[in-house]
Amino acid sequence: MNTSITALPFEDIRELIRSLPGPVTEAVEAVRARDAMLTKPAGSLGRLEELVEWLAAWQGKAPPAVTRPLVAIFAGNHGIAELGVSAFPASVTQQMVENFAAGGAAINQLCTVNNLGLKVFDLALDLPTPDITLKDAFDEKTCAATMAFGMEAIAGGTDLLCIGEMGIANTTVAAAIFHALYGGRPEDWVGAGTGVDAAGLKRKADVVRRAVGRAGVSKTNGLEALRRLGGREIAAMCGAMLAARVERIPVIVDGFVATASAAILHSVSPASIDHCLFSHVSDEQAHAAVLKRLGKRPLLDLGMRLGEGSGAAIAAGIVKSAAAVHSGMATFDQAGVSVSDVETD
Amino acid sequence: MNTSITALPFEDIRELIRSLPGPVTEAVEAVRARDAMLTKPAGSLGRLEELVEWLAAWQGKAPPAVTRPLVAIFAGNHGIAELGVSAFPASVTQQMVENFAAGGAAINQLCTVNNLGLKVFDLALDLPTPDITLKDAFDEKTCAATMAFGMEAIAGGTDLLCIGEMGIANTTVAAAIFHALYGGRPEDWVGAGTGVDAAGLKRKADVVRRAVGRAGVSKTNGLEALRRLGGREIAAMCGAMLAARVERIPVIVDGFVATASAAILHSVSPASIDHCLFSHVSDEQAHAAVLKRLGKRPLLDLGMRLGEGSGAAIAAGIVKSAAAVHSGMATFDQAGVSVSDVETD
Repeated sequence: MNTSITALPFEDIRELIRSLPGPVTEAVEAVRARDAMLTKPAGSLGRLEELVEWLAAWQGKAPPAVTRPLVAIFAGNHGIAELGVSAFPASVTQQMVENFAAGGAAINQLCTVNNLGLKVFDLALDLPTPDITLKDAFDEKTCAATMAFGMEAIAGGTDLLCIGEMGIANTTVAAAIFHALYGGRPEDWVGAGTGVDAAGLKRKADVVRRAVGRAGVSKTNGLEALRRLGGREIAAMCGAMLAARVERIPVIVDGFVATASAAILHSVSPASIDHCLFSHVSDEQAHAAVLKRLGKRPLLDLGMRLGEGSGAAIAAGIVKSAAAVHSGMATFDQAGVSVSDVETD
Repeated sequence: MNTSITALPFEDIRELIRSLPGPVTEAVEAVRARDAMLTKPAGSLGRLEELVEWLAAWQGKAPPAVTRPLVAIFAGNHGIAELGVSAFPASVTQQMVENFAAGGAAINQLCTVNNLGLKVFDLALDLPTPDITLKDAFDEKTCAATMAFGMEAIAGGTDLLCIGEMGIANTTVAAAIFHALYGGRPEDWVGAGTGVDAAGLKRKADVVRRAVGRAGVSKTNGLEALRRLGGREIAAMCGAMLAARVERIPVIVDGFVATASAAILHSVSPASIDHCLFSHVSDEQAHAAVLKRLGKRPLLDLGMRLGEGSGAAIAAGIVKSAAAVHSGMATFDQAGVSVSDVETD
């Protein structure tokens, strides 16, 4: 893994994003050939079959295997938490990181049930990014270094990476990034987050308006949107997504905030997130519109809006099921099952 | 369990269906009270929270537990398989039952990944129900006995029952039941099933038209629709759904054909399927319309149309996750996490 990205200026990171490896079509063809022999009607497992092809394309092998799935949670703090944009105080980010370590959070239970590894990366929680209505979140070097830190998510090895986050106020940062990238009104991109009331929602929209107005970022420049608007966990998730792609590890993206990282990469090169499965459409109101702009069809629609990788973990359970079905099923020949009349006619 | 249903005439079975136990609201209230203390924003797990309430309501306890989940597959054969309504020959039903026993089918892999038990009940596969375009599938006594056989699904004990089926030609039987119960045109209720072509689809619609025309069943009489149209697995699934309700076991219904069993019970008393979660909307084209008539919102939409409990097994994995989250998460107090400003204001 080229972690010398720490030293790279944005123009070089853009070049990396534009030159990522593509899918391995031979693996997809091998999956399709095996699928046609399995003891089920052709196409009858629908999206599960697509998931196996996606795994094969981005792992670069057939049959694909999910033996070391991992949930990586990136946690960051944000100066704008002081502006009343969340139902919870900023101290909750650190408290939840401790809750992850103690096994008490939702994601811990989801990882246990679905046999997923869990790693939590906290990003200088005692150094929130500055108030982005007043100044940029990072300089270019710090932003690139934070992306490089995110690349460490895969250092221990994994064959399916679920990417999630924790950070009080970060739905507002994500909304600012979407507003910067996609225009519209600030109100189009903000939502209830952890559960703010109407006044909180108005404050969120106001922070988004002021931050994006100040940053003045062009719609096609996702890396500058990231640098000027933040936050640390969003930068790190960008790095994790890139590292996974280079190392042929398929990625499951969690919810609204993790999608902001994908949107940043997508703004540089749409193909750069082809290895990403979007686990679910969040209950956060703008998420469906963002996924549509990214051209992505979420796997699940369960009204979730927790973050911390929870939707990605549920999706990982389904991906594991899909992979096991493909690898473990008998063929028509093996099982002595008559093939379809349609196929033999 | 009152298996003396074998001796019951339909009027008494109808009375049983109308007098089933209701939800335990105290358990739902206890779940809501605990949920409010867990270390997550209120409502942020969306449908997962609803699933826990549903489990508690129908298990009658809080917190609910899923420790012995079971997939029950009922297999039957159908005289109309000879009429060219399936892409596969009738012999495949028996072959697939052997495939289940050998561990080679999709459902075997799904049960392994999701830690679900599996039981297969084959229903006189060497005695297909007669051609229903010519005569009734059962007499009343045989139909009731088959329902009673289905009640055995829960005999070994379980706390979450997934109900699925296998039976060449049974999407046509299910379509006939829906046409009988809901009217419309035969074409409205038939679909590709295992993968028939346009000519096969026309044959299916024709069989449905002739069978329902012959049977002349009234729209409100689901048990007579079952008796006259079949099949054995559909009757047995009705019994399994009833037995589970009586024994306080929540049920996950698989796909198009299993939904026919639920529709039969629903026609007698809509509340009789309140304990049933509908795992997914099938790719079989009429399924969405049937679920709408039943007032049910499926958990998943994955383009599946395999049957054999596959969609229910995927859903069971999510239900297990939901239950584990509810039981295993720390409370705000336990984790030392600051509660929401919104809640404390």
